[in-house]
Amino acid sequence: MQDNPEFNTPDFNCPLPLHSTDHILMGHGGGGKLMQQLIEGLFLPSFNNPLLNQRHDSTVINLGDTRIAFTTDSYVIQPLFFPGGDIGSLAVNGTVNDLAMGGSRPSYLSVGLIIEEGFPIATLEKIIKSMQVAADNANVQIVTGDTKVIDRSHGDHHQGGLLINTAGIGIVEHSETITPRSIQIGDVILLNGDLGRHGMAIMALREGLNFDSPIVSDCAPLAEPILALLDQGIPIHCLRDLTRGGLASAAIELAEAANVEIELTDDAIPVHDTVRGACEILGLDPIYVANEGRFIAIVPPDTVEAALNILHQFFPQQACVIGHVRSKVPNFDRGYVTIRNTLGIKRILTQLSGDLLPRIC
Amino acid sequence: MQDNPEFNTPDFNCPLPLHSTDHILMGHGGGGKLMQQLIEGLFLPSFNNPLLNQRHDSTVINLGDTRIAFTTDSYVIQPLFFPGGDIGSLAVNGTVNDLAMGGSRPSYLSVGLIIEEGFPIATLEKIIKSMQVAADNANVQIVTGDTKVIDRSHGDHHQGGLLINTAGIGIVEHSETITPRSIQIGDVILLNGDLGRHGMAIMALREGLNFDSPIVSDCAPLAEPILALLDQGIPIHCLRDLTRGGLASAAIELAEAANVEIELTDDAIPVHDTVRGACEILGLDPIYVANEGRFIAIVPPDTVEAALNILHQFFPQQACVIGHVRSKVPNFDRGYVTIRNTLGIKRILTQLSGDLLPRIC
Repeated sequence: MQDNPEFNTPDFNCPLPLHSTDHILMGHGGGGKLMQQLIEGLFLPSFNNPLLNQRHDSTVINLGDTRIAFTTDSYVIQPLFFPGGDIGSLAVNGTVNDLAMGGSRPSYLSVGLIIEEGFPIATLEKIIKSMQVAADNANVQIVTGDTKVIDRSHGDHHQGGLLINTAGIGIVEHSETITPRSIQIGDVILLNGDLGRHGMAIMALREGLNFDSPIVSDCAPLAEPILALLDQGIPIHCLRDLTRGGLASAAIELAEAANVEIELTDDAIPVHDTVRGACEILGLDPIYVANEGRFIAIVPPDTVEAALNILHQFFPQQACVIGHVRSKVPNFDRGYVTIRNTLGIKRILTQLSGDLLPRIC
Repeated sequence: MQDNPEFNTPDFNCPLPLHSTDHILMGHGGGGKLMQQLIEGLFLPSFNNPLLNQRHDSTVINLGDTRIAFTTDSYVIQPLFFPGGDIGSLAVNGTVNDLAMGGSRPSYLSVGLIIEEGFPIATLEKIIKSMQVAADNANVQIVTGDTKVIDRSHGDHHQGGLLINTAGIGIVEHSETITPRSIQIGDVILLNGDLGRHGMAIMALREGLNFDSPIVSDCAPLAEPILALLDQGIPIHCLRDLTRGGLASAAIELAEAANVEIELTDDAIPVHDTVRGACEILGLDPIYVANEGRFIAIVPPDTVEAALNILHQFFPQQACVIGHVRSKVPNFDRGYVTIRNTLGIKRILTQLSGDLLPRIC
C-alpha cells in the first residue's frame, strides 16, 4: 500500500494551460495551480533569466565579494488588523521571512504604500508605527519608500483601503546552496510549530466565529533561528515558509522542483485544537491554511538532532520532524507529496486549483 | 527687482501640520505639499535612520566593496495604455530612472503585481511583454516577483484593474556624492528635453482632447546618458527626474534641501507647442506637469560645455541650460526656486498643495 498511493487524482500531473480562462480569478493569487500557470505560462517565459529561474522565495545575486538575496511581496489583507498583528507587521515579517528562506540576514526594506483616498490618517499612523516596531524586532531598516493615492472605489468605501508592497535585501553570509535542487533522498523535514493560526485568525474574524480564546496569528520574523542553524554548521538543503497555500502547497512545490517524493506523517503535524475546530466548521484542511511564522527546513538525517536542539531554543516543545524525502515512483514525470495516516496508508496531496482563503496575506 | 521676489505668497514657508486633515486626500500622493507633510510628519520620524534620511530618489548602501542604490515605486496609472507606453513600460522605466538619479547602473528589478479579479489575461500578457521589452532596452533583469489578486470593486469594474510595484537595485560605479547637499552656489541646471509630454498625453486621453498629432509620452530609460556623463568625468553634483509635480516640484525640493536659490529662466525651458496648447486649455502650468523621460543635472559651471556635448549625443538639439544656483536671501529659513521672465522679473515658485494630475504615474 505504501508504494501504491492513489495516483489517478483527476488533476494530478495535468497543469491547465494559461488560457483555460480568459480573466484573472481570485485563485491566480492563491498560491495554487492557477498561480503556477501564470508563473510558468507567462512570467518565466517572458522575463526569462537565470536569476528569476531560481524560483525561490528570494533570488540570490552575486555583487563583487558580496552575495545578496532580493525579494518582493505585496500585502492586500482584509481586515487590516487581526489578533497577533496588522497589515504593517505582516508586510515587514512576510518579506523578512522570504529573505530568511534564502538563508540571508534580512537587512534593508523598501515600502510602497498604495492608499485609497479617504483612508483615515490616524489608522495609517498606527500601521506605520507597527511597521517600525516589526522592523526593529526583525533587525531591518526601512530605507526607501513611495506613496500613491488611488481614487475611492465607486459606491461604498472598500473595507481595506490600504495595500502595501515591501521589497527586501538580505546579506548571504554562508556558503550553503539553499534551493529545492539541493534536496536529497533521505533528507528529513523539520517544522518549527503548529499550523494554520494566521489563516484561521483571519477567517474567524471574517466569519464571526467566537472561541473561548481567540485564534492569534503566528505572524513573526524567522531569520534568527535560521541564522542560528547556519552559524552552528547545520548544512540546510532547503527552506520554505508556509504562507499562501500552507504546508501542502510549499511541500508540493519543493517535491516537484526536486523531483522527489516528500512523505509527511499526518499525526506528527501539530495543529492547535481551536484551529482544528475552526477548520472543521469551515470545511478546510489545516495543512492548506496560510501561516506567517512557520517554516520547514530540509536537512540531512545525521543533523536532525543538532538542528532540533537549536530550534527548540527559539520554539520550545514545538519544533519537530514531520516527514522525509523519498525516491519517487520512477514512471512519474514529476515529484509529489504523500501524507501517511496512523494506519500507514498514504494519499497524494494535490495542489489547490483555486483559492482557499482570499486576501489573507 | 531680482533680489526682491514676491516673498509673501500665503503658503510659502508654512508647511501644514500632518493633521490639517483627518483623511488621506488625492494630494497626499501628488508629489506636492501634502505628500511632504506625510513624509516629514510620519514616515521620516517613524522609520528614522540615516539611509532613509538621504531623501533621494534612491538610497545608496555600502555592502562590502560594493555600493548599491535601492529604490521602489508603485504605478497606478489610468488608463493603462497611452501614446508612448503603458503601465508596464512605465513601471520599468520609472524605477530604472530613480536608480539612475543616484548615478547607479540599474541592474535588477522586482515586480509586485496587484490584479483585480476579472482582469483580462490577454491584457496582462500584453503588459508583461511590454515590461520585458522595456527591461531589455534599459539593460535590467527582472529577477523576482509576486502576484496578488484583489476582489473586484463593488459595482462596476474599475477602469484600471492593475497596480504594479517595482523595486530596483543599481550598482554605483563612480565616487561622486550625488545628493542635494552637494549642490553649490554657481552650479548650472541642465535639462535633457521638452517638458510636460507624459502628463499631457494622459490628460488629453482622459479629457478627450484631439490634436492633429497626438501628444506622445516621453517615457524612456535615462541611465545611459547619466552613466556617459559620469564615465567622461563630469562631476555631477545632483540629479533629479521630473516625475510627479514636474520640474517645479523637483527644483523646490532640491533648493530646500540645499538651502539655496535655484533661478530658472522661463524662456529657456522647452515646451512643445501642442503640450503648451493642451496646458492652456486645461489651465495647467507645464513646469508642474509630470514627465517620465526628463531629468535635471546640476553641474559646476566649468563643465557645462562638456556635459552638453555628451547629452546632445543622446538628446540632439534638446539638452540645454535652464537655470543657475544662487545664494538665497539670508533671512529666509529655507531655500526656494525663482523663475525669471523675459523682462528679468522673477517670481517664486510654490509647491502644489494638492494634486495636479491624479493617477498619471
